[in-house]
Amino acid sequence: MAYPGYLKKLVEALTRFPGIGQKSAQRIAFYLLGCSREDVVAIARAMIEAKDKLGFCSTCGSLAEAELCIYCTDLKRDNKLLCVVQEPRDVLVLERTGQYNGLYHVLHGALSPLDGIGPEELKLDKLVSRIKDKEISEVIIATNPNVEGDATAGYLARLLSPLLIRVTRIAFGLPVGGDIEYADDLTLSRALDGRREI
Amino acid sequence: MAYPGYLKKLVEALTRFPGIGQKSAQRIAFYLLGCSREDVVAIARAMIEAKDKLGFCSTCGSLAEAELCIYCTDLKRDNKLLCVVQEPRDVLVLERTGQYNGLYHVLHGALSPLDGIGPEELKLDKLVSRIKDKEISEVIIATNPNVEGDATAGYLARLLSPLLIRVTRIAFGLPVGGDIEYADDLTLSRALDGRREI
Repeated sequence: MAYPGYLKKLVEALTRFPGIGQKSAQRIAFYLLGCSREDVVAIARAMIEAKDKLGFCSTCGSLAEAELCIYCTDLKRDNKLLCVVQEPRDVLVLERTGQYNGLYHVLHGALSPLDGIGPEELKLDKLVSRIKDKEISEVIIATNPNVEGDATAGYLARLLSPLLIRVTRIAFGLPVGGDIEYADDLTLSRALDGRREI
Repeated sequence: MAYPGYLKKLVEALTRFPGIGQKSAQRIAFYLLGCSREDVVAIARAMIEAKDKLGFCSTCGSLAEAELCIYCTDLKRDNKLLCVVQEPRDVLVLERTGQYNGLYHVLHGALSPLDGIGPEELKLDKLVSRIKDKEISEVIIATNPNVEGDATAGYLARLLSPLLIRVTRIAFGLPVGGDIEYADDLTLSRALDGRREI
């Protein structure tokens, strides 16, 4: 196919985005060609600027505009409570609930022996020493409800048990607004396991 | 929600892409933050380079790296045959079939009175004079099979009728590999209309 070189390069770059296949990339490429040059430059600049100005907190691994993130430097937060998540974006999702006011720890991944990700890659030692140093009283594990997330949660629970602190994991069950009829077996059995008195 | 300013700006820029909503944009933004700076710069550069180096052919409106596109300057193509499409990407799709060896004309849109797109916006006069000047013998209309594409095809057919040339439209029917059971009513009735002797 006679695909001009610059278009091919752009489509290839765009297919590297998560969730973007060949067709979506081509659609976005043509959208960009139809934009004014200023608009394309603005989008390109937003990417580079975000990359240059945003980093990860040296303490907890959350997204940060400085050495430390806004959660680690916020004195009004409960510094006895630590929530462990897999990715920086999970912090934003938890913040959106407005329900949590403790600190965070971002693993930047989950245990996955097949992908060569072990406890060293997730720097779990650093997490343990942070919990010890800061006298955290409860660790809430909010890893994903899948094989890797479960393995990570189990490993962390064992790793933290000598510290004699409370280690919890967020609840699994039916999504609110969901319908029992459409729940998958695994979710439903976890919802049964996690039943509470009303 | 505590959404760092640069991330917000990036997510907003990405949601302008066709088919990208808030969640996909956030996912892409975090993907970019996880990339090396060189990779982000390479993607940004590919966008600006494509915008700077690619334009539209002054004759037919196809994507071009110069004043004229590779189709208009290709002497081996059948210059009596002209295919009218809505968008530059449609040219690439038709080229991929390897079945068509004529010239193209890209309207950069379709008639849509509700959006204020009339015959003037599509520069249909230019198309008519091109057909006259170049002594085109057949015009194949390959606008989309929807309301706007149908209206454009009908309008073009009437506009071109005084020229006494062959005006055709690509066939509608069941997609190859499809299943009659799952065909929608409109496609099926068009497939019946377009039936041919075997």
